[in-house]
Amino acid sequence: MSYNSIFNALKELPPAPKVSNDAKYIPTRINVRTVSFSGNGPLWGEKIPEKFIGRLGKEVSLEQGYAAARLTGMNLLLTAQAFLGTLDVIDYIQRIDGFISSTENFYDQSSVLNGCSDLMIEVFGENGKHTRSAIGTNVLAFNICVEISMTLVLK
Amino acid sequence: MSYNSIFNALKELPPAPKVSNDAKYIPTRINVRTVSFSGNGPLWGEKIPEKFIGRLGKEVSLEQGYAAARLTGMNLLLTAQAFLGTLDVIDYIQRIDGFISSTENFYDQSSVLNGCSDLMIEVFGENGKHTRSAIGTNVLAFNICVEISMTLVLK
Amino acid sequence: MSYNSIFNALKELPPAPKVSNDAKYIPTRINVRTVSFSGNGPLWGEKIPEKFIGRLGKEVSLEQGYAAARLTGMNLLLTAQAFLGTLDVIDYIQRIDGFISSTENFYDQSSVLNGCSDLMIEVFGENGKHTRSAIGTNVLAFNICVEISMTLVLK
Repeated sequence: MSYNSIFNALKELPPAPKVSNDAKYIPTRINVRTVSFSGNGPLWGEKIPEKFIGRLGKEVSLEQGYAAARLTGMNLLLTAQAFLGTLDVIDYIQRIDGFISSTENFYDQSSVLNGCSDLMIEVFGENGKHTRSAIGTNVLAFNICVEISMTLVLK
Repeated sequence: MSYNSIFNALKELPPAPKVSNDAKYIPTRINVRTVSFSGNGPLWGEKIPEKFIGRLGKEVSLEQGYAAARLTGMNLLLTAQAFLGTLDVIDYIQRIDGFISSTENFYDQSSVLNGCSDLMIEVFGENGKHTRSAIGTNVLAFNICVEISMTLVLK
Repeated sequence: MSYNSIFNALKELPPAPKVSNDAKYIPTRINVRTVSFSGNGPLWGEKIPEKFIGRLGKEVSLEQGYAAARLTGMNLLLTAQAFLGTLDVIDYIQRIDGFISSTENFYDQSSVLNGCSDLMIEVFGENGKHTRSAIGTNVLAFNICVEISMTLVLK
């Protein structure tokens, strides 16, 4: 997926999951040129696909986890687009922090998070490369299998 | 709770939990106009109330978890006040990162963390709105039920 | 360990674990004067010593956990040195975020993370003091016992 084709890919997605008016937080905060994103999950519009519910090592396969991380990354980009108007003003992705819901004997959090990391590199090339942590956990909100937050820097 | 009344509320609390001289870290670090806070817990002065010990989904109810997140937020504000002298110099809350000690079948980390998010909005209004992640985990230090760190930006 | 003697200590270590060309992320990202580091683990060169595999409260003792956090800190410094050319350009350590693989009844994540915090203070003195969170989790990638990321600020 190139930077140009990302627009078509994003159009195929339902709108970014909206943070409701009742929400106690906001999806993005800008600090000078740095934009911080709230944790996102593998939502398809307002819904969580059943295959992305549960833990790696049990209900969710590595392939599903990778796809969940990729969809979460798409939601982060949709959120960025909604906030910034365009992805053109992004200089680089600074960091992603990924939490992977895991059984005690699942050790491949890194390959799961690659679903999001690969996407950022496909879209932004070298500027999509970022620092990250891929952390296992026993449970996430709504029993989603991955939650990822992001920090990016504007041109 | 308004911005004005927060001062009275903070006075009703015992002093912020002190980081001892033996501690290997500091409660705050400033980087230009951005202040980073170490993870705080639901301490009342130097003590952890019994009701805030354990995990959501088992020993700690949703209401108790919410109260724990609110108390943790108060401790973050006490720490900010001690560091800055006054809360008046705060421009906005950029981000909170909340970890919620949870059983594997507790999925409402978001409602727990609202205890801290609500507080920040009550105190700072729109400027209190922040990005955040609400992450479940199997255990936290001292068996506290929530641990929250914060990033804020000065005027 | 003083700032001067750190160089000898770092020389005794094998080279910093390399992020392979296949990796989907980078070890460091600089944003103005702030450098973000990817999560590091207790690797000795390319290998994970057996004693650093598993969880605190079960396979890994407190002393081993402390040593793992210290080795992880050394790897962060090796990474910094490789990126910056020298540690001399570092002004201060802003923050470390430590995740400690833990059984449900292990509550001393703070003492484990001190292995990294102590190192930073030994090397940089007051400027090595940082904010931090020490978070328990049920499992980490490759079944390592600690994973730590860092943010530092340049002169």
